[in-house]
Amino acid sequence: MNSSVTSSVAEIATAVRERSPLVQYVTNYVSMDVAANVLNAVGASPAMVHDPHESGEFARIASAVGINIGTPSPSWVEGMTAAAEAAREVGTPWVLDPVAVGATAYRREIVAGLLQHAPTVIRGNASEIIAIATSRAAGRGVDSDADSSDALQAARRLAKEQSAVVVVTGAQDIVTDGSRVAVVHGGDPRMPMVTALGCSASALVAACCGVGADPFDGSVAAMAMLASAGERAGARAEGPGSLRMHLLDELAALTPDRLGSVRVDRS
Amino acid sequence: MNSSVTSSVAEIATAVRERSPLVQYVTNYVSMDVAANVLNAVGASPAMVHDPHESGEFARIASAVGINIGTPSPSWVEGMTAAAEAAREVGTPWVLDPVAVGATAYRREIVAGLLQHAPTVIRGNASEIIAIATSRAAGRGVDSDADSSDALQAARRLAKEQSAVVVVTGAQDIVTDGSRVAVVHGGDPRMPMVTALGCSASALVAACCGVGADPFDGSVAAMAMLASAGERAGARAEGPGSLRMHLLDELAALTPDRLGSVRVDRS
Amino acid sequence: MNSSVTSSVAEIATAVRERSPLVQYVTNYVSMDVAANVLNAVGASPAMVHDPHESGEFARIASAVGINIGTPSPSWVEGMTAAAEAAREVGTPWVLDPVAVGATAYRREIVAGLLQHAPTVIRGNASEIIAIATSRAAGRGVDSDADSSDALQAARRLAKEQSAVVVVTGAQDIVTDGSRVAVVHGGDPRMPMVTALGCSASALVAACCGVGADPFDGSVAAMAMLASAGERAGARAEGPGSLRMHLLDELAALTPDRLGSVRVDRS
Repeated sequence: MNSSVTSSVAEIATAVRERSPLVQYVTNYVSMDVAANVLNAVGASPAMVHDPHESGEFARIASAVGINIGTPSPSWVEGMTAAAEAAREVGTPWVLDPVAVGATAYRREIVAGLLQHAPTVIRGNASEIIAIATSRAAGRGVDSDADSSDALQAARRLAKEQSAVVVVTGAQDIVTDGSRVAVVHGGDPRMPMVTALGCSASALVAACCGVGADPFDGSVAAMAMLASAGERAGARAEGPGSLRMHLLDELAALTPDRLGSVRVDRS
Repeated sequence: MNSSVTSSVAEIATAVRERSPLVQYVTNYVSMDVAANVLNAVGASPAMVHDPHESGEFARIASAVGINIGTPSPSWVEGMTAAAEAAREVGTPWVLDPVAVGATAYRREIVAGLLQHAPTVIRGNASEIIAIATSRAAGRGVDSDADSSDALQAARRLAKEQSAVVVVTGAQDIVTDGSRVAVVHGGDPRMPMVTALGCSASALVAACCGVGADPFDGSVAAMAMLASAGERAGARAEGPGSLRMHLLDELAALTPDRLGSVRVDRS
Repeated sequence: MNSSVTSSVAEIATAVRERSPLVQYVTNYVSMDVAANVLNAVGASPAMVHDPHESGEFARIASAVGINIGTPSPSWVEGMTAAAEAAREVGTPWVLDPVAVGATAYRREIVAGLLQHAPTVIRGNASEIIAIATSRAAGRGVDSDADSSDALQAARRLAKEQSAVVVVTGAQDIVTDGSRVAVVHGGDPRMPMVTALGCSASALVAACCGVGADPFDGSVAAMAMLASAGERAGARAEGPGSLRMHLLDELAALTPDRLGSVRVDRS
């Protein structure tokens, strides 16, 4: 873990570009391509290393680890657990993305197990965060039925219980550590039509935490990067296909000025 | 399963957009990204849930299920079987995509097993449909050596034997339930250069069946959606990369008018 | 294997377009989509067949085989080994892509095993080739820390020891069989920001070897195809997202003239 601590969105984005944190992302099959491209676009170095034969070893050299349960199976869960354990042991920040946790018993069990390993950040949509916080089944799949602002209370409770930062993505993105709250505005309403941008958001959070940023500040920075690039991409996109392309171009073209103009409400 | 029954292409496309059917797609690694994006573009809600620990449970809440054998392995086949069994049990429509079934003994065996669970629709290219109908090895891989019109007889026989709708995609797309036949025209000749559009076609069929459409009508609607969007995308594309991008944009922009102008020959 | 032998870049590219070699690529999850699209764009026929239940059988009908260890796990390694053994047995060319071989003990062990099966071509970045040649851990992940020209000596030694062609991709691409050396110029400096273009380069090498080209000539042709298309794509791209799209379009639009103008230094 890097020792320097930066706090502003622009500083963190610059640090990611300059230091190219090695982000190990144990993620679902759907998101592999776009999440790796998102990480590359901002200057991070993605590594999709998942199997238990190497995931723990790799987590010890990674700058940050992301764990996403989107398409789980037993050997992958074993690999996730090994990576989370290793990350915790050496003090490397790790991000949990509990995709569709409310949908099946298997996912609830997997998330319950991973929460034992003290994730640094938990990033989900409103349904997912509510499902974890209330330990009840909620939501029918990967898409969220609830508005992200509905999830603020659940997020604060979960953050306190887990001593983690919780990020709820939606029309606005909420970041909280249980006491502080930041709401990030921007993006484009068509972003949910592009597959796995939520998964990619979790990867970006890991990248920002991987340069030594405070997890709360790093999470805000990651959301601001997506909000800025998404908004600019949306202005040019004709639909979800071109939105995805422009988003990658805009992530690669982020500037301190653009990042500085993202609206972030803090309370 | 929804109780309402719609029949026209435009009505079915509108129903998909409005009701956002939850489509569980147990599919190959190559197609995960583009198939999910295609489903999102038309308004459906994709969920790639494959493992036997949850695939059957999930199939019970899905609006429709797709099963694609493109990159098979034992645990995936177990998950496919659990999903197919559950779908059949609760009356949820499910679509079989027998990728490259003629290429290896393993694929022939997998398809033979899945056919026991009464797929609602079988969607393949001409080589694949002929390979199943004749139970002989045919075709060398994922690409088709035969013209789709050559496969009409095989498709009709297979549809009757399996009491299923059979869709043969190619330069023209054929849909048959053994007695009725529809031929859908449109698309772009470069579409086979874009990986996994066949797999995505199967996912679209599932989405259209997932809003309660008759499987024959739903299959025709799915083919018409791809034909319309593909033709418009092709008019602007410079090659397979831009074709894919424009296709997603055009799928998101389908209108009843555009769908109404797709040529469908029925007999 | 085809009997005809072609040697010029343009001849080999034309042969790929006309004969559509069946390329079996046992590759990592991240690269599945883009590598298949790259193969399709140049006219080859991709088949991602990985499981030990069919990978050996399929390798016997493939024109060429690629094996890429980017996201390894035990059953995949078994499938890779079966494909490599079958390819060697029937004389089908096969290409090894030792992704991040220096990063973990597991990867070093896998590569050591695969090298027993006499790959026709080994394609990696400088860090990877140096790691194999020196049998020491090197490099932290999938991205290269070393310049490709630094790797020339390592590549020549490895080529001689393995009786294989070695390709080192980077700002310039080096191809050597231990005595002959070709350096291919072109491409775009942003190509490393597009995920899995290295994996796709390995797939292109397999495609070129799959039409009967001498492995050295085939490797040079593959690098020249990427260099030409990459340079033209780069001239139009605004970032990594549009670079990827234009690259696929340009690969599909390669002409003998364009390929003839790629600078290749031979010694």
